[in-house]
Amino acid sequence: MTGKQVTDERIILAHGGGGESTRQLLSGHVLPKLANELLNPLTDSAVLDVPAGRICLTTDAYTVQPIVFPGGDIGRLAVCGTVNDLAVMGARPIALSLAMVLEEGLDLRTLDAIMDSIASAAKEASVPIATGDTKVVEHARGDGLTITTSGLGLIGDGVSPAMGRVGEGDAILVNGGIAEHGLAVMSAREGLGMETQLLSDVAPLAGLVAVLLESGCDVKFLRDPTRGGLAGVLADLAEGTSMSIEVREADIPLTPIARHMAELLGLDPLTVANEGKLLAVVAADDADKALAAMRDHPLGRSAAVIGSVTDASPPLVELVTRAGGRRIVQRPYGEELPRIC
Amino acid sequence: MTGKQVTDERIILAHGGGGESTRQLLSGHVLPKLANELLNPLTDSAVLDVPAGRICLTTDAYTVQPIVFPGGDIGRLAVCGTVNDLAVMGARPIALSLAMVLEEGLDLRTLDAIMDSIASAAKEASVPIATGDTKVVEHARGDGLTITTSGLGLIGDGVSPAMGRVGEGDAILVNGGIAEHGLAVMSAREGLGMETQLLSDVAPLAGLVAVLLESGCDVKFLRDPTRGGLAGVLADLAEGTSMSIEVREADIPLTPIARHMAELLGLDPLTVANEGKLLAVVAADDADKALAAMRDHPLGRSAAVIGSVTDASPPLVELVTRAGGRRIVQRPYGEELPRIC
Repeated sequence: MTGKQVTDERIILAHGGGGESTRQLLSGHVLPKLANELLNPLTDSAVLDVPAGRICLTTDAYTVQPIVFPGGDIGRLAVCGTVNDLAVMGARPIALSLAMVLEEGLDLRTLDAIMDSIASAAKEASVPIATGDTKVVEHARGDGLTITTSGLGLIGDGVSPAMGRVGEGDAILVNGGIAEHGLAVMSAREGLGMETQLLSDVAPLAGLVAVLLESGCDVKFLRDPTRGGLAGVLADLAEGTSMSIEVREADIPLTPIARHMAELLGLDPLTVANEGKLLAVVAADDADKALAAMRDHPLGRSAAVIGSVTDASPPLVELVTRAGGRRIVQRPYGEELPRIC
Repeated sequence: MTGKQVTDERIILAHGGGGESTRQLLSGHVLPKLANELLNPLTDSAVLDVPAGRICLTTDAYTVQPIVFPGGDIGRLAVCGTVNDLAVMGARPIALSLAMVLEEGLDLRTLDAIMDSIASAAKEASVPIATGDTKVVEHARGDGLTITTSGLGLIGDGVSPAMGRVGEGDAILVNGGIAEHGLAVMSAREGLGMETQLLSDVAPLAGLVAVLLESGCDVKFLRDPTRGGLAGVLADLAEGTSMSIEVREADIPLTPIARHMAELLGLDPLTVANEGKLLAVVAADDADKALAAMRDHPLGRSAAVIGSVTDASPPLVELVTRAGGRRIVQRPYGEELPRIC
């Protein structure tokens, strides 16, 4: 340490040592923003009362670069991504945990901004940050800030979206324009100068899912198409159900700017990550009702029915193109967009 | 990528992309070792049935360097550390989540060894790895492998170790020799050549805690003295209870080799991290019974009563030295042992 100023403004190794410095970091920069009755006792664990039933546990490590991107940052992403993993299981989020690995030298103002973002997203999703941990790694042995959130949710009685319930004829819906998270991050990363035009869609989907589940529709399967995009989820669905999927390119919501940017970057928007999109499979007869329920919610204004499940064999995902042709949609191999979430 | 050989033996960015490469990594190197009925569906979440009651959620990020150290590795540590955070809340661990951030270029054999270690520690602690996530960061923007585990535990009826229950006269016990984890890691880091003589104590404490809770003792408070060591926990206890603590140096278990190494490294063993130690506060009348219960368990063979809670004011931690002197024990500031867990 070269003086008080450095200590005050940058992360130092001692902030992760578990001693007095760690306490100062937490009490000065973390706890005031996240304060809630579960976190406040500051034990290493949170204790929650739950009714008998099914609970859901999920975890995700977030390594997005840059950590601040158009429409969000790694903090908002870490809350929304984990809330969404619970939501698509039909679970109502009741607690999140927050583990951060900070790189020595990280500007404390950056940390402050990320903490604000975490607090705001948690409030938006109505879920407390119930427990956490903070570690520090040496300069050049980390990458600014990585976050792992885990989430705990309660599954209501009778709610059971699951791939095994999907059948022939079921309708496939999405709640709005695809590919926006991945494209926004890539735009920032590549310095394309289009940051003001396209924002990440990062948002907590638990409210939208609740509306859909309460609509009375037979909701058979839900998934948030993140890494791997819509293509990845549809490929999983075909493989997992041994049925085919037909989707219509013309019906898949995609804004003109997103389409343009995907072309510029040479990316297939179907394979680009989303962080505020919901893919829902519902019984064919419920397609209209589900669509109306989604469109009634702020995160579903541009919802659309994009295709259906068929019994064509072998099980494949087929895209009916705008030109009327057909192409097989495959699971992306993985190089497309590293560190997008 | 320069060829198949590299792809097969080293972590590449695509392994974290969420596409086909990620699936291959998981199905080839992760799932076969962790397989259990919660993890196998490979959704992003695990679903568990729980009875009505209190559940406990905890999380920890593990950044230990080196990732393999005498007596353990980051995998064993990530399981045991989180199991122990549940155990000291009186919770029986029912599920862990596992989030890994891998550095591009990591040798897959290293990952394989860590996964073996995770599987083995999870088995030892009788807890399934219920869900997980894997990300990859570029070479030189990470540090080999960091792991975040979260844990979920059930708290039994009537079990409530909590700082608020601690009172004057209560006895303080530990289950064995302190400082061994921190010293083992430092020994490996500094190349002291003493790696065969001192091993980390890293171990899951849930079984030992269960024995203690079932012994009929009035167990008032439990904590695992990790970062900050015994000194940190005792300082927390004095501050949290507004009472004083008196501990006797001669009664605190410390092996000759650990004492020697601490002297060599210029460290106060009281401030050095443990990963398989339990500090327990029990009613004075139950001290002997608690000691006997601990000593009956393989992880408590060297258990000892090390001191007691007093009403001395102001609230401080005092160490009665071997020479009969007294010194105030303070919470370590944090620089002592960065990246020890």
